[in-house]
Amino acid sequence: MRHVIGIDLGGTKTAGGIVDGAGNVVFSAAVATPAQSGAAAVLENTAALVRSLQGEAHRFGLDVDALGIGSAGVIDSGRGVVVSATDAIRGWAGTALTDELSTRTGLPATALNDVHAHALGESWLGAGAGVPSVLFIGMGTGVGGGYVLNGECIEGASFTAGHVGHFASPFAVEAGQPLPCSCAGSGHVEAVASGPAIHALYRRLGGSTAESGPADTRGVYRLAADGDPTASEAIRRGAAAAGSAIGGLANILDPAVVVVGGGLAFAGPLWWDVMEAEARRELLPPLAALRIVPAQLGTTAAIRGAARRALNLLPAIEGTHV
Amino acid sequence: MRHVIGIDLGGTKTAGGIVDGAGNVVFSAAVATPAQSGAAAVLENTAALVRSLQGEAHRFGLDVDALGIGSAGVIDSGRGVVVSATDAIRGWAGTALTDELSTRTGLPATALNDVHAHALGESWLGAGAGVPSVLFIGMGTGVGGGYVLNGECIEGASFTAGHVGHFASPFAVEAGQPLPCSCAGSGHVEAVASGPAIHALYRRLGGSTAESGPADTRGVYRLAADGDPTASEAIRRGAAAAGSAIGGLANILDPAVVVVGGGLAFAGPLWWDVMEAEARRELLPPLAALRIVPAQLGTTAAIRGAARRALNLLPAIEGTHV
Repeated sequence: MRHVIGIDLGGTKTAGGIVDGAGNVVFSAAVATPAQSGAAAVLENTAALVRSLQGEAHRFGLDVDALGIGSAGVIDSGRGVVVSATDAIRGWAGTALTDELSTRTGLPATALNDVHAHALGESWLGAGAGVPSVLFIGMGTGVGGGYVLNGECIEGASFTAGHVGHFASPFAVEAGQPLPCSCAGSGHVEAVASGPAIHALYRRLGGSTAESGPADTRGVYRLAADGDPTASEAIRRGAAAAGSAIGGLANILDPAVVVVGGGLAFAGPLWWDVMEAEARRELLPPLAALRIVPAQLGTTAAIRGAARRALNLLPAIEGTHV
Repeated sequence: MRHVIGIDLGGTKTAGGIVDGAGNVVFSAAVATPAQSGAAAVLENTAALVRSLQGEAHRFGLDVDALGIGSAGVIDSGRGVVVSATDAIRGWAGTALTDELSTRTGLPATALNDVHAHALGESWLGAGAGVPSVLFIGMGTGVGGGYVLNGECIEGASFTAGHVGHFASPFAVEAGQPLPCSCAGSGHVEAVASGPAIHALYRRLGGSTAESGPADTRGVYRLAADGDPTASEAIRRGAAAAGSAIGGLANILDPAVVVVGGGLAFAGPLWWDVMEAEARRELLPPLAALRIVPAQLGTTAAIRGAARRALNLLPAIEGTHV
């Protein structure tokens, strides 16, 4: 059976797996990303992980035939090049991702954005399996997503489609002023609904002093679980903003299913219940039965989505790959 | 050369045209829609228009081989049935549109939503011609749209995709309260950016008394042209809401071009300039060069889009149709 390697390359961690044609991850591994050491170091680090996986495949008697990379940044998946990127990986923009990794590993390679890979994985084998259209929304440090139609993630004319955190939200206005957003704009969904936004809101609501307050969003969740009403209020408001956005996106796109992933989706029923109620309040009548479900594949989603693209590089006839 | 008939069936007017394989409208006609007389009357009225067009085709020596209908309502384009509809046409929901019109005219028929037909027409032959992805947005009595990818309008799992007027807008909140929307929800883009919303805003801004005020949105435009600052303010606010929504939609979908149609798009530079500036302010950096352009086909867009679908009913080989 043919196998490929899927890579999920992020600013903190680079994870990879050996994936079979049915999407099973038969072996996986992860390393820290040397994000501040520049593109060459990140490429070499990734190649080392791939070579390590190739070695494991050999030990298990498996042939690996192609490499798929889901990477942070805007990725031109046709050319396999990083078009633009934030500072999360220093000097990442302009990197010829597939050429560099193909040269270093000897494998034919393909690349796409990591969130697009995540969406593709969930729609192939996870919570979106078996339906023709899946809206995946990741709610965590950022707010992103991907729309998968007939098995393909829509990447957009500039490979930036799925930036579902960057449209105006009425929840991102306080005292008449739009909240600043990570994109340098303001008033966007991400500015009020991301994990850090919930943490910042908790501080603005005066739930604790800067000295004694929770250090991150997890801390806010812990306080809410312990009965802190200000922490609950911050989570509720972020969840309502997320739900309003998700309901609106469903009206725009009319997917067969909405899959919600990312850390917030798994932080407990408080966030999920408020999010889902607000999303349903927004839906047009024909969408009343829309399924809104949590992601299923966790951290392997992007690995599998990248592997799915790598499988496309192989000849269509399974029999030619013995 | 093969010809088809395209129909644009709305609550006020039913327009139709004889369209050739290249999308030229060689003859067109329109009749009032007997919208309050029920589905049977509307079907018979449409069939009469089609028969009239068939007669004209015969006079000009043209063969008409198929019928495409772009209709108000949510249309299941696979079955050719009206899934649901507003009261704009009484009793329209449940109508077996293609079966009924095929029986009445003897032509193979296909049907889709009228806004989807409009988007398809503009992407085939209008302002969106020649690129792989087109976001069409119609700004008029309502706010609707369609996303055309590789020549197909994305219709959605419930055939409601493109409802781009029904997501939350910070512009649709006044004194902390969301404005009521036509969909029975509130706080949506359409509630602040449609033509009637601009008219209603002008009244709320106190620009004139109910007795002497302009009777409709056109009246507000005339007053703005005559220097009425309140009329200008109402138009500016509606245009800014439209632009904010359009910029956000571009971030979500990353189309090759955004085509803006509907009455407001052609009401003058005041609306367009404010809309475009606000849209560009929202765009993520990779989208800075995005084209945002006015529609080109006017009222023939939906006729041509419906005709495009009808052409799909014909065998692929032109030579078989002499």
